[in-house]
Amino acid sequence: MDIREESLQKHYEWNGKIEVKSRVSIDSSKALSLAYTPGVAQPCLEIQKDCDKSFELTRRNNLVAVVTDGTAVLGLGDIGPEAGMPVMEGKCALFKEFGDVDAFPICIKSKDVDEFVRTVYLISGSFGGINLEDISAPRCFEIEKKLKELCDIPVFHDDQHGTAIVVLAALINALKVVKKNVGDCKVVISGPGSAGIAIGKLLLKYGVKDLTFCGSRGIINTQTAKNDMQREMCKFTNLDNKSGSLADAMVGADVFIGVSAPGIVTEEMVKSMAEDAVVFPMSNPTPEVMPDIAKKAGAAVIGTGRSDFPNQINNVLAFPGIFRGALDCRAKEINEDMKLAAAYAIASLVSDEKLSPDYIIPEAFDKRIGSTVAQAVKEAAIKSGAARI
Amino acid sequence: MDIREESLQKHYEWNGKIEVKSRVSIDSSKALSLAYTPGVAQPCLEIQKDCDKSFELTRRNNLVAVVTDGTAVLGLGDIGPEAGMPVMEGKCALFKEFGDVDAFPICIKSKDVDEFVRTVYLISGSFGGINLEDISAPRCFEIEKKLKELCDIPVFHDDQHGTAIVVLAALINALKVVKKNVGDCKVVISGPGSAGIAIGKLLLKYGVKDLTFCGSRGIINTQTAKNDMQREMCKFTNLDNKSGSLADAMVGADVFIGVSAPGIVTEEMVKSMAEDAVVFPMSNPTPEVMPDIAKKAGAAVIGTGRSDFPNQINNVLAFPGIFRGALDCRAKEINEDMKLAAAYAIASLVSDEKLSPDYIIPEAFDKRIGSTVAQAVKEAAIKSGAARI
Repeated sequence: MDIREESLQKHYEWNGKIEVKSRVSIDSSKALSLAYTPGVAQPCLEIQKDCDKSFELTRRNNLVAVVTDGTAVLGLGDIGPEAGMPVMEGKCALFKEFGDVDAFPICIKSKDVDEFVRTVYLISGSFGGINLEDISAPRCFEIEKKLKELCDIPVFHDDQHGTAIVVLAALINALKVVKKNVGDCKVVISGPGSAGIAIGKLLLKYGVKDLTFCGSRGIINTQTAKNDMQREMCKFTNLDNKSGSLADAMVGADVFIGVSAPGIVTEEMVKSMAEDAVVFPMSNPTPEVMPDIAKKAGAAVIGTGRSDFPNQINNVLAFPGIFRGALDCRAKEINEDMKLAAAYAIASLVSDEKLSPDYIIPEAFDKRIGSTVAQAVKEAAIKSGAARI
Repeated sequence: MDIREESLQKHYEWNGKIEVKSRVSIDSSKALSLAYTPGVAQPCLEIQKDCDKSFELTRRNNLVAVVTDGTAVLGLGDIGPEAGMPVMEGKCALFKEFGDVDAFPICIKSKDVDEFVRTVYLISGSFGGINLEDISAPRCFEIEKKLKELCDIPVFHDDQHGTAIVVLAALINALKVVKKNVGDCKVVISGPGSAGIAIGKLLLKYGVKDLTFCGSRGIINTQTAKNDMQREMCKFTNLDNKSGSLADAMVGADVFIGVSAPGIVTEEMVKSMAEDAVVFPMSNPTPEVMPDIAKKAGAAVIGTGRSDFPNQINNVLAFPGIFRGALDCRAKEINEDMKLAAAYAIASLVSDEKLSPDYIIPEAFDKRIGSTVAQAVKEAAIKSGAARI
């Protein structure tokens, strides 16, 4: 059976992928008066005196809201808030499985940026973190920026930063395989959307100097930039303001990263890249170029978003551990240092002995990942001043 | 140790009273592709085609939001949204324990009625029902009314209707004990707030004809009514527009119901009531009159909100079964017929043989309650056209 049909059948059987469980047994009058009235008045009053106590006296210390408006769900586009919920529930199940984080799915019935922001802010007192999910660009940039200003808990758009972190982790190890220095590499990113721009920013932070974005109309430059975020990126990328096609951009490139559209990269284009090219065609489910073609064209290291090829670049490697680490130190944000630390941590799990063109990044089910990422993120939070305990 | 101190200590140990659990095991690539990408695209698309499918393909079919703004928490008043959360979590634990309902606590950081309403509406696509909790009067009336108009799922303010239902259940059996007809009874309600007015409305619906409300300034009449809701109630209560004190109102009354303030009813006032009076002083933790005093003064049946006296009038008898029943038939609302059915169902659990002045209402831990109430509510929903399946 087709995986999507099988999934649909399973969803009918599952009757929801998450549930809310009670952590206390309320089986006597005494238990009732401790967990509820009249005893519960005391923890309430403690929080009234000091709002930070809500992190000790309620589940807030482990709770993350997974929030969407359903405008950019998977590759399906704007399918509506309720229709995005199976993805949100799946994400919550992954949070629990891989990070022991309690995540709760919320869909918001509004496409208005300010209304979305206000709604999330107004419910943020119930949570220790906000994971934004499947929100269309460029709205997602504005939503994230505004929420970060309003909230004193981490706000993290996983489609941007989770992806960027895992790509960076893969790139760190890929460059070890091909023995190139990041500062010398010519990097091309196809897809100047939310994921692409976040990848670009994190790569620049990591040390990439020569970076070019390409969109559906070719190389992004000060003339072709479509929105504020793309214009902003032109200050740091394509510094000689080239124009041309994606094929033009890829000539001589050391690294290609695709978060764009299936099949848009040809064998010829990969052949035109520098020797020992690194190629991450991550369009899902069909990559920008199929791995066998990229290999035939001479690519040295290839990674995709798919689990049926080597080197799966999968967000699940990052977000559970990142929030686990942030919650453990009650971080007020997830900053650049914490993201870099997460990428290094993921990369570190591939030992030098095991590192190879077909193994640059750990498997999703590697049991070490969640705790390793969490520890690194927590340390970076403490060092950068984001931690509150 | 004082129960409140012990509760505080327990809350520090519990580390939250609820948690989010995954209902699917994601332990392989195959499992990941069924519960998450790429398989999950199919249930998403099914919901996009027909939004009602969200009740089958996500946990919405069993999820209730327990929502507060923290303005009227227990008897503590306006302690703020985060400080209300221990109560909300406790409520969620009770929902699970007594009704197998997944309830999730949400606090909203706004005291503006319209903003509160808009926020709850915008997140309502994640839930199958909304339980409003600990919201101050008269704001709670407007909030509930507006949300009922906006939402196609049940919106239920438990402090109003849950209380009213359990009071009615107790009254049904108390009148059996004293062998009085409801239509002949003179009833006084002390406390014209959210609970009092809801009790009054449901009693009128049940058949009470002579009903008088008293507030802090005595009998409520067209002159002393303080808000729209009280003015509205004057159309159906105190029909000869009496004025005077609570003591005046109680002279010759058959039933006293208190949801007001500790100790405001004296032995003399109970003595002035009709023979075989029913007295429900439910102010918590200290009743309007202590049961031993009411008994000495001649009251035939006494019920309070406390678990250490007989006849505890406790909301937990109602809300879990009510939402269980509403969710089971995907009710679009909880209407008057469903509330009456819940009250009859609770009352029915006290058999004629066991009925006595000290046993008019089942104990909170009576295992039959949740399912009995749920079944009655579901049947009433189907009969009244509120059920959608």
